[in-house]
Amino acid sequence: MSMVTSVREGNRLALARVLTQVENATDEGRACLNDLFPYTGNAHLIGITGSPGSGKSTLVNKLAYMFRHPPEGDRPRRVAVVAVDPTSPFSGGAILGDRIRMRDLAGDADVFIRSMATRGSLGGLAARTADVVQVFDAAGYEVIFIETVGAGQTEVDIARLAHTIIVVESPGSGDDVQAIKAGILEIADILVINKADHPMVENTERALRSIFDLALLDSSHHHPDEESLEYPSATKKGWQIPILKTIATEGVGVELVYQAVTQHAQYLKQSREWLRREQIRLQSILDTLLQHELVERWRKSTSSEIYQNVLKELISRRISPYQALQILINGVTND
Amino acid sequence: MSMVTSVREGNRLALARVLTQVENATDEGRACLNDLFPYTGNAHLIGITGSPGSGKSTLVNKLAYMFRHPPEGDRPRRVAVVAVDPTSPFSGGAILGDRIRMRDLAGDADVFIRSMATRGSLGGLAARTADVVQVFDAAGYEVIFIETVGAGQTEVDIARLAHTIIVVESPGSGDDVQAIKAGILEIADILVINKADHPMVENTERALRSIFDLALLDSSHHHPDEESLEYPSATKKGWQIPILKTIATEGVGVELVYQAVTQHAQYLKQSREWLRREQIRLQSILDTLLQHELVERWRKSTSSEIYQNVLKELISRRISPYQALQILINGVTND
Repeated sequence: MSMVTSVREGNRLALARVLTQVENATDEGRACLNDLFPYTGNAHLIGITGSPGSGKSTLVNKLAYMFRHPPEGDRPRRVAVVAVDPTSPFSGGAILGDRIRMRDLAGDADVFIRSMATRGSLGGLAARTADVVQVFDAAGYEVIFIETVGAGQTEVDIARLAHTIIVVESPGSGDDVQAIKAGILEIADILVINKADHPMVENTERALRSIFDLALLDSSHHHPDEESLEYPSATKKGWQIPILKTIATEGVGVELVYQAVTQHAQYLKQSREWLRREQIRLQSILDTLLQHELVERWRKSTSSEIYQNVLKELISRRISPYQALQILINGVTND
Repeated sequence: MSMVTSVREGNRLALARVLTQVENATDEGRACLNDLFPYTGNAHLIGITGSPGSGKSTLVNKLAYMFRHPPEGDRPRRVAVVAVDPTSPFSGGAILGDRIRMRDLAGDADVFIRSMATRGSLGGLAARTADVVQVFDAAGYEVIFIETVGAGQTEVDIARLAHTIIVVESPGSGDDVQAIKAGILEIADILVINKADHPMVENTERALRSIFDLALLDSSHHHPDEESLEYPSATKKGWQIPILKTIATEGVGVELVYQAVTQHAQYLKQSREWLRREQIRLQSILDTLLQHELVERWRKSTSSEIYQNVLKELISRRISPYQALQILINGVTND
């Protein structure tokens, strides 16, 4: 409890310790989370994603700086950045990223940056990211960036933890057909074309606008699978998704993104959409935990010998994967 | 059974029907898979992945054509292409892709191309891709390309279904730090730098080589998480991963990739690595099915009312996600 109190009182060392416990999913970390959870629900969670090389990290840097030093009339916010890299098996990427960030924001006690790398266990990453975000939220960080690399489903899952999703693209990163495939466009609340000094910027903007119109058109016919949560397109009513051009390295256009982010927070709160996203977000966190726990329990309840025998039959092709599944599931004894 | 016989005898219409049943996960599809499974295990499964815009589809096209019209001394193979797009919620991308492919390969009865798009239910996609690949394998397709978009974990999971993994990059798609983050490099058996007429090609090659050396160095200290299968780096012993340059649109360098692919198949078979990958592949398929089934069973065994009540408590922050999990799991009654 005293650890939790220290975190709530702004003790950075206590915060760092709790974050480590939470990342490592220790019993202590889980106990802290339970105690901290009632204090969550105040932060504005901002997901930021896009292709590798689009300049996301630089943009997050500049946005974080702007939330610390806002335009006249706005109050400075306490800012946390959670940089998640689901694809990198090397810690090198994340560490290097941190060092580059430090230049702008070092020494500011109201900025906390945390990199999360993974070594293969992806099922847990979205859950652990959610946990880390909760700790920052309870610790009084008012704006929390969740930055992810790439365009795969894990990134989409992680971005789904946010209230506001910024998708960053850069010009010339692919042809038109491939751009359609990037796919994460449909989750965007704010679209940013970074590196806007690139000669191809007009083409990219045109391509994005047309894909985007198509997507919005398409979404009216869209019936999500049972498994998926109906998150994006339909909920965009009442919010005109801006397409903004930036040159993040030089700070150009960053204030426009800042304005869009704060306007989106206002829109969410006025339209009850904030509450709806909170509900979806917490349900998604719960479902992920459930899935993980069910598999763990099954593993504990099944003898490794039975599993290995079935696997052997499968590998020798005496039984099919579905037949193997039936044998394993029907042999389960729960306790 | 007669459907299965027709598929085995090369009836394309029967094949297309079974593929549809399998993709839709119908009972009929599952029955066909069980009957077909003993006939699998002969195809060379080639995963091909890389950033959007790297020219993967074009390269697959050209490679497929080369397997149909091989250099003197080689036998033409029957080729299937399974194009998986885990990120696109629009069918547009996949359909468009198909139309572009057709030009080269249309009219060849020994080539079969199947696009799989998804609408959000990602858990199922890797499993359904595995199923579709099994059908092609049992139907006598000797070379099966599994093409995926992007660099996220889902793509890695899908690529893991293959014996040989080709990673395609293109020059100038990101700076050096970001390139490290691309991360899928570590799963590559063959590295291709496509669009090699791009002025930045030398930089990209240098960056890839240094990242690659770093990765191989790093892998000796690498202890994978319990959850992850120890698949890549350590197993690369005895196989020198080639870095090949291509201009796929003009066919330049494609024969080198073809040679590398066939050499890799030889290496796998001579070194018993083929068998090891088969085992890992089938275990991964089984584990995915298990996870999905356990969640399904839990859902059926738990009343929606209990779940909704717990969710309500969670959303009002009276209980934490981990406390919600405990209540739900301990309230489970299995049948």
